[in-house]
Amino acid sequence: MADRVAASRPGGRSGRVLTAIYTSVGELVGEGADKISFPVIAERAGVNPTTLYRRWADVNALLEEVAVAALTRDGESVPDTGSLQEDLTRWAEIIARDIARPERTRYLRAMVSARVETVSGCPVTEKRGEQASEVVLRARGRGEPAPTVEQVLDHVIAPLYHHVAFALPVDDEYARRLVRDVLAMVR
Amino acid sequence: MADRVAASRPGGRSGRVLTAIYTSVGELVGEGADKISFPVIAERAGVNPTTLYRRWADVNALLEEVAVAALTRDGESVPDTGSLQEDLTRWAEIIARDIARPERTRYLRAMVSARVETVSGCPVTEKRGEQASEVVLRARGRGEPAPTVEQVLDHVIAPLYHHVAFALPVDDEYARRLVRDVLAMVR
Repeated sequence: MADRVAASRPGGRSGRVLTAIYTSVGELVGEGADKISFPVIAERAGVNPTTLYRRWADVNALLEEVAVAALTRDGESVPDTGSLQEDLTRWAEIIARDIARPERTRYLRAMVSARVETVSGCPVTEKRGEQASEVVLRARGRGEPAPTVEQVLDHVIAPLYHHVAFALPVDDEYARRLVRDVLAMVR
Repeated sequence: MADRVAASRPGGRSGRVLTAIYTSVGELVGEGADKISFPVIAERAGVNPTTLYRRWADVNALLEEVAVAALTRDGESVPDTGSLQEDLTRWAEIIARDIARPERTRYLRAMVSARVETVSGCPVTEKRGEQASEVVLRARGRGEPAPTVEQVLDHVIAPLYHHVAFALPVDDEYARRLVRDVLAMVR
């Protein structure tokens, strides 16, 4: 996803237009705007609505693209402490703190409402999967017993996002508990 | 929650009014109505909007009440097969099939959007917790090693609801995998 966004964000005019569109969507979502449509976004971004109709199938596709980009920042570094438990714990805490921030929560909710049909892949999950894979592969390289990437996604990532989406409390202790549990699967 | 709803649903006129309100909310959510407000619900239900303003703090409170009632049906029986693995597997499959139905998914999404502030307790989670508790206590009574109720909620229920909310595929195989994992925590 990061690559796709980067690839579609060349510098120059079209890069500036895209930034204006992303920013406007971010502002509207952040303000809790009731009705986010192509014309509303276009007006805020100061671009012709045609630009939006041409690039995205519908407003949900644009909302999802922005939400995903916001939820999986590039350059987020995955902890590398030499211990699987420590790596997973720090990583889960970073994610928990990040997605529990009100503006991230609003994006997450926007993403939930934007998805109507079942999606075959979720860029947020894919990105988290790549990060989990780094941690898990390094642990295996050190000879540590490690859960599968799928298990990390199902039992650390899914419960964290579930709690945020359903407005249940998320804190470091919750993140640590999930990591302890997923490690208990391979003991 | 079930008790609260039942208690506030006496027979006679006020019972019929409440049923009309619940039904109208269900219809509007089912139709994917864009704007669900007290006046819209009142018109559909054929009641005076004042009735709604008097009983619920805002439309989100009503939406959440209906969503929770719909998502945790009374009389849903918890499997009792004499084996923890079998009980949990059948229970998880029932939930997966139930919440993956389009009309439940719509309710779940309505619940996600209705929650703005962090909630201290979630009636859906509480209800699932009671059910998990039944299964876990019976297993302990038989001397089977069993996960905690919290672990069942975090690692079976949360991922199932996460998948439904984020429009990721949910099927029996996913439900079974989650149960296998949670049981691996106590082996």
